Amino acid sequence: MAKIVECIPNFSEARNQEVVDGLVATAKSVPGITLIDHSSDLSHNRSVFTLIGDEESIQEGAFQLVKYATEHIDMTKHTGEHPRMGATDVLPFVPIKDITTEECVEISKKVAERINKELGIPIFLYEDSATRPERQNLAKVRKGQFEGMTEKLLEEDWEPDYGDRKIHPTAGVLAVGARMPLVAFNVNLDTDNVDIANKIAKIIRGSGGGYKYCKGIGVMLEDRNIAQVSMNMVNFEKCSLYRTFETIRFEAKRYGVNIIGSEIIGLTPAKALVDVAEYYLQIEDFDYSKQVLENHILG
Amino acid sequence: MAKIVECIPNFSEARNQEVVDGLVATAKSVPGITLIDHSSDLSHNRSVFTLIGDEESIQEGAFQLVKYATEHIDMTKHTGEHPRMGATDVLPFVPIKDITTEECVEISKKVAERINKELGIPIFLYEDSATRPERQNLAKVRKGQFEGMTEKLLEEDWEPDYGDRKIHPTAGVLAVGARMPLVAFNVNLDTDNVDIANKIAKIIRGSGGGYKYCKGIGVMLEDRNIAQVSMNMVNFEKCSLYRTFETIRFEAKRYGVNIIGSEIIGLTPAKALVDVAEYYLQIEDFDYSKQVLENHILG
Repeated sequence: MAKIVECIPNFSEARNQEVVDGLVATAKSVPGITLIDHSSDLSHNRSVFTLIGDEESIQEGAFQLVKYATEHIDMTKHTGEHPRMGATDVLPFVPIKDITTEECVEISKKVAERINKELGIPIFLYEDSATRPERQNLAKVRKGQFEGMTEKLLEEDWEPDYGDRKIHPTAGVLAVGARMPLVAFNVNLDTDNVDIANKIAKIIRGSGGGYKYCKGIGVMLEDRNIAQVSMNMVNFEKCSLYRTFETIRFEAKRYGVNIIGSEIIGLTPAKALVDVAEYYLQIEDFDYSKQVLENHILG
Repeated sequence: MAKIVECIPNFSEARNQEVVDGLVATAKSVPGITLIDHSSDLSHNRSVFTLIGDEESIQEGAFQLVKYATEHIDMTKHTGEHPRMGATDVLPFVPIKDITTEECVEISKKVAERINKELGIPIFLYEDSATRPERQNLAKVRKGQFEGMTEKLLEEDWEPDYGDRKIHPTAGVLAVGARMPLVAFNVNLDTDNVDIANKIAKIIRGSGGGYKYCKGIGVMLEDRNIAQVSMNMVNFEKCSLYRTFETIRFEAKRYGVNIIGSEIIGLTPAKALVDVAEYYLQIEDFDYSKQVLENHILG
């Protein structure tokens, strides 16, 4: 079985179409890589690419994209609303099929080492690859942004995992790491009171004492005049979607509010939904990797 | 996107290990084919192979297996409990990914034509490929079995779709066709009364006036002392698993009986379970082919 890995590099460029096209062409030029999706946000001046490939191809694809970005994006001239510290800002590797998070940590380290060696960019390992607890959180790693990185790298706690305490003059600093796939899962309520969605979000999210692997906020869907609990499920194996769904259902009841629907935004691994079916159908002893036909397709 | 097709040839041999090994070797020798599974039943003297591959490879793989079976299985010497009419008895093609049933009908016809032309076996098209309503049902096509086929082919209604009204002397007759993937789905009840499972099975199955694409019987699980509704879901797109599950739930209630679990036997397409998750989570506007990550893996 081929081991399948997803990589979602974030590049600090969206306004220069030539550079975006160059990144797309680079992604498509690497054998074994499929570019599933890419989107560019002009106000953020940032592009997010989603690649998928086998264990070896994904490393080559990630490296070639970072190389192209290093050669074509100049952070000394970058402006944009989204926090950023490098030409390639963040490079996460996500286990998709027949591969563990631990193996993705190894992949992230190999790619990080090569990037530093061949391109001279200092690298912080983050999320599951982090070497220190405070580096797990991307926001903490990126704090100070590109403009503050020269000084930050000299601080005692912020020696890069790869490279010297010195930014790449135009490409800055890069965060590389492994993380679980994230599922964007929103649940719609039959109320126009966003406070209820907010209260429920606080209860279910890890930071509020709820499910550790769930992040959530309440939002108002103005066009439908309904409130929504908007979630990121950051580890669906440790917290399945049905668990937050049923919790929202019983928490909403105290307000006389019901669930009227839900949505999944963007991509989800099939397993995140198969796990849900297993729960509701009360399936005994289901073996996902053996019993799901598609898992046999990639020989 | 590669079009993925499953093929499940049934061969009239299980007792001669050399021939079974030869079939396995043949399946593995065809590029683009993955042999997912094969099982041999000694009392049936029959082996079922499950192959998967792209549109072109699956045709070559199916043909090479039928060729090997034709050269190595002699139906004049075959005994076994299971009804059969040929060395390769039945050859179904099942749409798995990015391909329609109609396209699989075309594939079945192409393979059938080649088998008849190169190997001289008369062929009936069955299931979704059938040219007459009475040929949809395999049991009707196979009635008379190998020993009765010489006479049957001379009957007015039983001219083969490919070939003359004359069996292959050692390989007999073959049924080729397209069908939807079948999901074997069993629901366990908290009762030791198999009559209740039988009554529910009669209500839910198409032949009893229930769901057209559901076949079902009641069975007793002796080791657990519970009754089970055992189903074949022959078209999960037209009748999802949750529908029979919820129907069994409310039908069982009149007997004071509850569902205590379920099982899926063997393989299932991921979509059969993702459809179930969509129902229970009330997901709005889910696009299976675009939003499920794995659907992008095969470029």
